[in-house]
Amino acid sequence: MRQAGRYLPEYRRVRARAGSFLDLCYTPELAVEVTLQPIRRYAFDAAILFSDILVVPDALGVPVSFIEGRGPVLEPVRRSEDIERLQPARLAEHLDPVYRTVAMLADALPEPVALIGFAGAPWTLAAYVVEGESTRDFAMTRRMARTEPDLFARLIDLLSDATIAHLSAQIEAGAQAVQLFDSWAGILPETEFERWCVLPLKTIARTLHERHPEVPVIVFPRGAGFGYRRFADERSIAALGLDPTVPLEDARRMLGHRCLQGNLDPVALLAGGQAMFDEIDRIVRTLSGTPFVFNLGHGVMPETDPDHVAALVERVREPAASRTRDG
Amino acid sequence: MRQAGRYLPEYRRVRARAGSFLDLCYTPELAVEVTLQPIRRYAFDAAILFSDILVVPDALGVPVSFIEGRGPVLEPVRRSEDIERLQPARLAEHLDPVYRTVAMLADALPEPVALIGFAGAPWTLAAYVVEGESTRDFAMTRRMARTEPDLFARLIDLLSDATIAHLSAQIEAGAQAVQLFDSWAGILPETEFERWCVLPLKTIARTLHERHPEVPVIVFPRGAGFGYRRFADERSIAALGLDPTVPLEDARRMLGHRCLQGNLDPVALLAGGQAMFDEIDRIVRTLSGTPFVFNLGHGVMPETDPDHVAALVERVREPAASRTRDG
Repeated sequence: MRQAGRYLPEYRRVRARAGSFLDLCYTPELAVEVTLQPIRRYAFDAAILFSDILVVPDALGVPVSFIEGRGPVLEPVRRSEDIERLQPARLAEHLDPVYRTVAMLADALPEPVALIGFAGAPWTLAAYVVEGESTRDFAMTRRMARTEPDLFARLIDLLSDATIAHLSAQIEAGAQAVQLFDSWAGILPETEFERWCVLPLKTIARTLHERHPEVPVIVFPRGAGFGYRRFADERSIAALGLDPTVPLEDARRMLGHRCLQGNLDPVALLAGGQAMFDEIDRIVRTLSGTPFVFNLGHGVMPETDPDHVAALVERVREPAASRTRDG
Repeated sequence: MRQAGRYLPEYRRVRARAGSFLDLCYTPELAVEVTLQPIRRYAFDAAILFSDILVVPDALGVPVSFIEGRGPVLEPVRRSEDIERLQPARLAEHLDPVYRTVAMLADALPEPVALIGFAGAPWTLAAYVVEGESTRDFAMTRRMARTEPDLFARLIDLLSDATIAHLSAQIEAGAQAVQLFDSWAGILPETEFERWCVLPLKTIARTLHERHPEVPVIVFPRGAGFGYRRFADERSIAALGLDPTVPLEDARRMLGHRCLQGNLDPVALLAGGQAMFDEIDRIVRTLSGTPFVFNLGHGVMPETDPDHVAALVERVREPAASRTRDG
């Protein structure tokens, strides 16, 4: 929610000056500018790096392009030869502009504003590189995971290592917290969830926690449902992001001893008004008493009125006592 | 899982003779033939009508076509005028070929084989008619439900009434059980789940149960996760279908007193072999002792080897005692 995006006119102006979407991610001056936009407009307590989870496959040598109205399109990685062709050695140099962006932001951000770096989780990155685009049910990826588990594990391991390298470099450049987005965790069947979602996320979190114990690692396994429970006692994970489908009472019960983050429905933000205030109040009320970061349960929708975000921020910051049903 | 589909060569031969996919659904001789194919091949204990959930919008006057490689495409219903243009009075006549198919099947099926009719749930039908196609996140539908709840409720109510009429007519023609598919239940946020998924399904189930108390109503709210709990004590629902993401231990805990149906991952069926047997055994073992119908957690994937289905049926029918790890 703290990331700039198409809902902001100032973002759209900068976006129009960059060539492609990835050019924007790889041009430090522009990426810094758009990262700072929501901070200037809303005085957020934290800035999240402007980037994309697909810079990692792009850096590994999988050509990625973003096509208006269709989303990302990638050269699919499906066979053993495709995996062998990936170039982990290229990562640091290819993503150097991202790390320069992080360093410039660490200098530019006013004091109490924290800088959050991020990356995609291996399962979600694998889903994109295997399908070659965002499909409805990622059937090809789920099929490869079941029918060629050793081959798929090689892809997941390679993406895990790349993700560790990418997040470590962001931390070394000045990121004060990092978040892992497993956007497609929710499509994994019960018996595949541990191997392809939980284990890679824990491996990454543990490695980062060992290297940088002072940097909180936030994990967002979107749509995990009952699977959230499997992260309940992992101490290398500092906070868990909740999506809007998780009932908050269940989240409290399963994870009330952990720091939670979420989970306003972006559609409630789009709608605005009293319905939005009611949802905000319910979240704050239910999760007050647990360590908690107010956030959306998914990204801001492009059609969202920027004034709704301002109203949200004001509402969340109101002392609980003055928060009444009539807003 | 008991429905014919592209994985069967005999289905593909009949499909090639019909013009469009909907022509196949609306030609009783052909629809009867493909409904019977899996019964002949596998001696299933039940036949599910060959049809599609989108025959209901089609009957209401929303033009539907099925485009190879893209899925269903519909004339979108988004404004008040679009809803007013829907023609519930057309339903019975337009869907008469479906009811003739049911009647012919009721005559044709050998004695112990039950005939199951079905329909889409209002939320899922609304998702298709609002978007006009199957999108990744049905954002337009979720937006309409939040920002124009009264208008959206009119659409849901109209679809609920049409679904009741459609299922009643199937029962009157000879269906011995009916199933409601809420394929997109899983995208509803916590606070919207009750209104758009649970209430319409309960309304339909109660009405059908009053009219036809002898006919079991099966409800499949795919991806409902924690939301399955909300159906736990609804007596008008005879059985609940589980998708492959629900941990079976949670299903037992929440719903162990109800008849459950599911939940083999269709990708495990596609993969076949020992991994498939292990999954089958786990499901049978965990749910034995509760009333239970073995089924897939979603449809058979088109690339599935028909021999895998035969191996599945044999495995499920094996007495538990002879089911060993080495298959």
